[in-house]
Amino acid sequence: MSFFANIFGKKESSASVARDRLKVVLAHERASNALPYMEDMKAEIMEVIKKYTKVKDIHISTQSNQNIDVLEMEIILK
Amino acid sequence: MSFFANIFGKKESSASVARDRLKVVLAHERASNALPYMEDMKAEIMEVIKKYTKVKDIHISTQSNQNIDVLEMEIILK
Repeated sequence: MSFFANIFGKKESSASVARDRLKVVLAHERASNALPYMEDMKAEIMEVIKKYTKVKDIHISTQSNQNIDVLEMEIILK
Repeated sequence: MSFFANIFGKKESSASVARDRLKVVLAHERASNALPYMEDMKAEIMEVIKKYTKVKDIHISTQSNQNIDVLEMEIILK
């Protein structure tokens, strides 16, 4: 159950703030060089999400270390 | 650093097994009913990933509880 409790963060896990939210995480572990298509693919995935959803608010964060890139999007739906 | 250590699981965090892997997590917190477009959107995101990547192996898991649906894909790239 901790997986569910944590995926949207601890702050708003109470049922009283339930709302439609979407979390998209794209993590890429690189064996060697960056894949040339990665940025295009991310952009196209975001286009699909924008096409389907009515976005009220969106938070995007990126993190990188030596061989892992992570893109995290939290989308509050209308 | 624990975030990076855990996102691809603990088993294969050693540098000796580094390879190109992609992890895609789509989590949806529902305020009320399921959104009608969710399945179509997931399918279309998977189409984008298939279009760009050369997939060697793919693991898909889904989990649901009362108000959160999670789709997790781990893709081993060629």
